[in-house]
Amino acid sequence: MAQPSESKVDVLIIGAGPAGLMAAAWMAHLGISTRIVDKRNAKIFHGQADGLQCRSLEIFDSLGFADRAWKEANHMLEICMWNPGSDGQIRRSDRIPDTIVGLSRFQQIVLHQGRIERFFLDNIKKYSGGNINVERGVLPESLEIDEAKVDDEDEDEDAYPVKVSLRTLTEEEAQPVQQITGSKIADGLYRSSLVQEDDEDDLIRKSKEREGESEVVRAKYVIGCDGARSWTRRALGFELHGEATDFIWGVMDIVPITDFPDIRMRCAIHSAENGSLMVIPREHKMVRLYIQLKEVAPDASGRADRSKITPEMIFSAAQKIISPYKIDYEYCDWWTAYQIGQRVGTSFDAHNRVFLAGDAVHTHSPKAGQGMNVSMQDCYNLGWKVGLVVKGIAKRDILSTYSGERRQIAQDLIDFDHKFSRLFSGRPAKDVMDAEGVSMEVFKDAFLKGNKFSSGLMVDYGSSSLVVKPAQKQALATGLPVGMRFSSFKVLNQADARPWHFQERLKADGRFRVVIFAGNVLGATQKTRLDGFCAKLDSPTSFLHTATPQGKPLDSVVEVLTIHSAKRWETELLRDFPDLLHPFDKHNGWDYNKVFVDDESYHEGFGDAYGNYGVDRERGCVVAVRPDQYVGWVGELEDFADLQAYFEGILVLRPKERAGANGVNGVNGHH
Amino acid sequence: MAQPSESKVDVLIIGAGPAGLMAAAWMAHLGISTRIVDKRNAKIFHGQADGLQCRSLEIFDSLGFADRAWKEANHMLEICMWNPGSDGQIRRSDRIPDTIVGLSRFQQIVLHQGRIERFFLDNIKKYSGGNINVERGVLPESLEIDEAKVDDEDEDEDAYPVKVSLRTLTEEEAQPVQQITGSKIADGLYRSSLVQEDDEDDLIRKSKEREGESEVVRAKYVIGCDGARSWTRRALGFELHGEATDFIWGVMDIVPITDFPDIRMRCAIHSAENGSLMVIPREHKMVRLYIQLKEVAPDASGRADRSKITPEMIFSAAQKIISPYKIDYEYCDWWTAYQIGQRVGTSFDAHNRVFLAGDAVHTHSPKAGQGMNVSMQDCYNLGWKVGLVVKGIAKRDILSTYSGERRQIAQDLIDFDHKFSRLFSGRPAKDVMDAEGVSMEVFKDAFLKGNKFSSGLMVDYGSSSLVVKPAQKQALATGLPVGMRFSSFKVLNQADARPWHFQERLKADGRFRVVIFAGNVLGATQKTRLDGFCAKLDSPTSFLHTATPQGKPLDSVVEVLTIHSAKRWETELLRDFPDLLHPFDKHNGWDYNKVFVDDESYHEGFGDAYGNYGVDRERGCVVAVRPDQYVGWVGELEDFADLQAYFEGILVLRPKERAGANGVNGVNGHH
Repeated sequence: MAQPSESKVDVLIIGAGPAGLMAAAWMAHLGISTRIVDKRNAKIFHGQADGLQCRSLEIFDSLGFADRAWKEANHMLEICMWNPGSDGQIRRSDRIPDTIVGLSRFQQIVLHQGRIERFFLDNIKKYSGGNINVERGVLPESLEIDEAKVDDEDEDEDAYPVKVSLRTLTEEEAQPVQQITGSKIADGLYRSSLVQEDDEDDLIRKSKEREGESEVVRAKYVIGCDGARSWTRRALGFELHGEATDFIWGVMDIVPITDFPDIRMRCAIHSAENGSLMVIPREHKMVRLYIQLKEVAPDASGRADRSKITPEMIFSAAQKIISPYKIDYEYCDWWTAYQIGQRVGTSFDAHNRVFLAGDAVHTHSPKAGQGMNVSMQDCYNLGWKVGLVVKGIAKRDILSTYSGERRQIAQDLIDFDHKFSRLFSGRPAKDVMDAEGVSMEVFKDAFLKGNKFSSGLMVDYGSSSLVVKPAQKQALATGLPVGMRFSSFKVLNQADARPWHFQERLKADGRFRVVIFAGNVLGATQKTRLDGFCAKLDSPTSFLHTATPQGKPLDSVVEVLTIHSAKRWETELLRDFPDLLHPFDKHNGWDYNKVFVDDESYHEGFGDAYGNYGVDRERGCVVAVRPDQYVGWVGELEDFADLQAYFEGILVLRPKERAGANGVNGVNGHH
Repeated sequence: MAQPSESKVDVLIIGAGPAGLMAAAWMAHLGISTRIVDKRNAKIFHGQADGLQCRSLEIFDSLGFADRAWKEANHMLEICMWNPGSDGQIRRSDRIPDTIVGLSRFQQIVLHQGRIERFFLDNIKKYSGGNINVERGVLPESLEIDEAKVDDEDEDEDAYPVKVSLRTLTEEEAQPVQQITGSKIADGLYRSSLVQEDDEDDLIRKSKEREGESEVVRAKYVIGCDGARSWTRRALGFELHGEATDFIWGVMDIVPITDFPDIRMRCAIHSAENGSLMVIPREHKMVRLYIQLKEVAPDASGRADRSKITPEMIFSAAQKIISPYKIDYEYCDWWTAYQIGQRVGTSFDAHNRVFLAGDAVHTHSPKAGQGMNVSMQDCYNLGWKVGLVVKGIAKRDILSTYSGERRQIAQDLIDFDHKFSRLFSGRPAKDVMDAEGVSMEVFKDAFLKGNKFSSGLMVDYGSSSLVVKPAQKQALATGLPVGMRFSSFKVLNQADARPWHFQERLKADGRFRVVIFAGNVLGATQKTRLDGFCAKLDSPTSFLHTATPQGKPLDSVVEVLTIHSAKRWETELLRDFPDLLHPFDKHNGWDYNKVFVDDESYHEGFGDAYGNYGVDRERGCVVAVRPDQYVGWVGELEDFADLQAYFEGILVLRPKERAGANGVNGVNGHH
C-alpha cells in the first residue's frame, strides 16, 4: 500500500451538519485555514430538524443570512393547546404566543434543515473566498493527540498536536441506507434513536480494501460535530450518560387534508386515551406531526422493534388522537420514529485541542425544536475562541470556557426535555383526584416556561475570564446582564439618521466590542467624562493599541461603538465626539458608522435604547461585548483600568515599543 | 450572403436596461415566449442611475427581490438644505425627511444600477426557468409592421405582425467607447446628453461587412426600451419633443474626505455665487455629487464643448460650492456631465404592437432620481397587459391604456423636472427684493412637493376599461382611490396568525384580484350579505368561472382574497367563511392563504387596515385590483353585476357550456 499523504491544517471539523457548518462559518469569517469533512455523501433533502429559535436567527443575522431564513420559513405565531373535555373529546383549551412578546426582534420559525445548511454553505463560500468546502464521503479512521504539545503556544509553527487519518469513501459507501426498502417516502430511521448499530466499522473495513485513499491530517484543533453516535467522541473514549424512557414517538412530514381548525398553528394535543400529538406547521403547505405511539413498547433490552414501525401505523395513531376531526394526506415527505431519551457527554473536550459539539454531547427528544439550535449555538460559542487563539489574538486559556459554558447549557436542556417529555407523553388527568394523569394546568405552565427557555435567550454564562461576575456595576445597565446576550433595540446612525437594530452592528467578525453609552454629550461634565475615557482608551498602553497587530486598523481586534442620548439634531459627529470614536483614514476619510444616537426615527419609531438597556441617559456607562454578542463586562466611564484588566485577561497584548520582538513577529506571521 | 435565419417569438424586447428587464421580468413571471436583446456587450459596473423610490421597491417586492435591494442599498433618511447666510457662507437651513412619513412601507434608497440589473437577471432566470436570457451585442437593423394584421386576435397563430432584423456584433463593436482615453476612471460621457451622435450607423455598416450574423424575428409584440437615442423610436419615425436649458451639470461618484457635516445626508446646497450642488450618499462609502458647472456654457448650436469637461474641473466647482468646508478624494468611481433638458415622445406605441418605454419616450435631468424609476414603472404598467393578451386571458383593447396611462406620467415628470431644475440651478435670492434670484422658501416648498411626486405613489391613472372612474362607490373605501396603487397595511392570516403587509399578497403573477372586505362576518346580516356575494361569484356565469381556462384552478386568472374585521379568536376559517374564499383541493386540502383578519398581532402591532383603507368595519366592501396593484373598481357586496361588467370589459370570457368551441381551443393552445 502507498504511504498515505500528510498535510497540515489549523482547524479540522468532523461532521457537516448545522453544528459543523457553524464552526466552519466562524473559520471562514475569521480567515482560518480549515477543513471540514462528512462521512455522508448526500446533503439532507427531507426531514430532520426544522425549528429555528430567536437566538439562532440573531446568530444567523450576525453571519449575514437571517433574512434568507426569515423569508423562506413558515412563521409560527401561536400555540394552541387541545385537551379532552369532560366528554373525553378534545377541544381547544388555550392559545399562547409561540414566542414570548418582546424577547427578540425575531420569532421562532420553521424551515427545513437542508435549506439552513444551504445558507451556511453559501455563507462559508462567500467569506472564505471559496477556500473552505465540505469534503463529503470522508471518514475519520484514527485520532491521536500529542500530549506533549497540547499547551504549546500557537506562535510555534510546529504545534499541530492532533493527528487524524481520513479515508475517502466511494459514492456507494457514503450513501445512507433507507431502512424500508421499496418505500417511495424518504425515511429517517437510519438516524433515529431506534437504530443502535452504526455502519461505520463496516464502511471502514470495506474502504480499507482499496488503496491510496487514506491521508493523514495534522491539525492544531479538531472539532467533532459528528452527531449522536459521534466517531470523534468514541475515539476520545468519552460517553453519553443518561437514560431512555418507554415513550416512543413517530414523526411525519405531510401535506394534510383535514378539518382540524388549527392545523396551521403549533398545537399540543393530549387525547383522553390515545396519546399525544404535536402539530408543527411548515413551509410548502407541509405539517410535521409528532405522534405518540402507544402501541409500540420497548422490549426487554429497552429497545423497540423497529420493523413494526411503518408510516401507516404512525398515521393511524395520529388519526385516533385528533378524532373526531378527520385527517388524511396524499403526500408524505418524510417519516421516522424515535425513543425519548436524554443524555449528556461525559466531557466536552480533550486538552482543549479536540472539542465535541452538538448531538455528540447532548441528545434528547426533538419536539421542543431545540436540538439543531443548541448544537449550532455550541459552535457559535466555540468557533471564535478557537479562531482568535489560532490567529494569536486571544490567549489559549479562553478555550476552557467552552466546556464551562456549554456543558451547563446541555444539562439545562436535558433537564428541560426530561420534564417536558414526560408531561407531554403522559395521559391527561381526568380531574384533580387523578394523581397518575398529567394536570393540563401544570402542562401549560411548563409550556410557558419552556417557551422562554427554548428561545435560546435565557442563556446566562457563568463567571470566567470572558465574563466578569458578579458584576459589581450591573446597576449601570440593568437591561444588559453580564453573561447574557446583548439584546437589541433600534438606534440611529448619527451621520445619516438610519435606524439600525443595534445587534445588526455586532457582526460575527471575531471582534470584541466596547460599547460606550456616552450619555448626554452636550452636557459639559459628561463631555469631560467621555473625553477622559477616550484619552485613556487611546493611550499607547491601552489594550486597544496593544491588542491591535502592527499595521492593522485600530478597530481590528476591538471595535469601539458609541450610543449617545442627546438629540441628533443638536449634535455633530465631528464636533461633539472625540476622533477616536469615528476614526480618520487617509484614503477613506472619517468613519461614519460607529456613532449612534437613541432618538426618534422618521419611519421606525423610537427604540428607547437607554430605557430598554436600563442605562442612565445623562451619565451612560461602558459595556464590553464578546465576539458572540455576550456581555462580558459593565462599568463606568471612570472604570478604564478595570476594562483594561478585563482585556488583559483575554487578549495577547504587545507593548508597542517592543515592535520587532518575538511576540509581534509571531503574530504577524498569522496575518 | 447567406439568407438570414427566421424565427418567431411572442415578445421581442429591445434594450436590457431597467425598463427592458422589467418587461422581461413580467414575461418570465407570466411564462411568455420572449427574447430580449441589447446592443452593448457589457453590463453596467459604474455610475448610471441609482435612486430607488418607494413605488419601485413595492414593485420589486411584488416580483420577489425588494429585500435584496433593501439590504444592499444605502438608505437615505434626511434631506439637509444648505443656503447662503447673510454673510454669503452656506449654512444648514432645513432638515426634512427624505421620504414622507407613512406613505409606504419602504423608503427611498440608493443602489448602483448594475446591482439592480443583477437582481432582475436572477429573477428572470428563476421565473423563466432559464428560458429568457439577455442577448448582448445584438443590434436591430430594421423594423416592419404588417398593418393588415395588427388587429388580429392572438388566437390566430399566424398573427406575428412585427418583423425585426437583428445583427450580432463582434465583442469589440459592442463595447462602448470611453470618451477620455487613458483615464483610469470610468466615465459616462458616451451616454451623456452632451454627446449628440450615436455610433450605431457606424456599427451597422461595419457589421454588415461580415456574413451570416443577421437574422429575422417575427414577433407579436415589440417593446423598445433602448434609451434616449432609441433606435426603435427612430425606426417608427417618432420623436422626442422638448427643450434644453443652458444649465450644465457634472456628476461624480467619489469616496469623500471632508469635514462637511452632512456628507452622509442627501443635501441640496445653493452657494451664493458658485452654483449648486446635490449630495447623494451611496453604498460602499461612496457619495454622488451633482455639481453645477457655471464655467461651461453651450455654444451657438446649444451644445457645450465636452472636451473642456474633466473630472478635475468638475471637482474644482464642487470645492468652491461647498467652501468653507473642505472636500477631497482619492477614489473616484465614475463621472459624467449632462445638459439639462426635458423631452417627451410624440407617441408611445405604433398600432399597439410596438411600444416605447423609459428614456425612449421621456428624458430629463437625473437629480431627482426619477429616470430609472419611471422607466421601470412604464414597463410594470405595460408588461402584464401584453402578457395577458398574448395568453388570451385579456382583450387586446386593454393595450391602448398603456399610452393613455403612461404618457400623462411622462408629462407630469417632465413638468416637475422643468420646474425643479430651474429652481435648483438658479442663484439664491439675496433678499426678498432680489427678483432674479430663487427664493429658498419657494425652493424648499418645491422640494417638499417634489418628494411626494417622486415617491411614485401619487400616480393616479385616468378612466379606462381598467379603471372605473369616476368611482361612484369610492366612499366605501376612501383610502383606496380608484386609479391609484393599493396601499399596504398589516393584516393577519386567519389560519396561522402571521402578519403580512397586505401588498405582499399582491404578487406580480399576472392575476387580477377581488379583495373582499368581508366586514364583521359574525353578524348575521353581514354573513348573509357575504354569502350572497359569494353565491353570485361562484355561479357558472360569473367571470370567476368564465375567465378561468378549462382545467385550471379557479384562482388562475382572478384571485379572491378576503380581509374581515371580526376578532381572529372568535372566527374559524372553515366554519365562518364560504368555501369559495378558501378553496378545497383534493391533493392539498383547504387553502389557508386567502383569508386575512384586521386584528392585533403578537409582535408587529395593529395594522388597522379597515381604518387606513377607510372601509366600514361592519359592512365592508369589494375592491378589484389590477395585476400591477392599481385599484380598478370599488363597490358594495350587492354590486356583483357591476363587478361582472368590469371584468367583462377586460377579460376574454368563455361560457363553460361552450367548452370545445373555438375560443376555448385557442386559449388552451396557450397554456
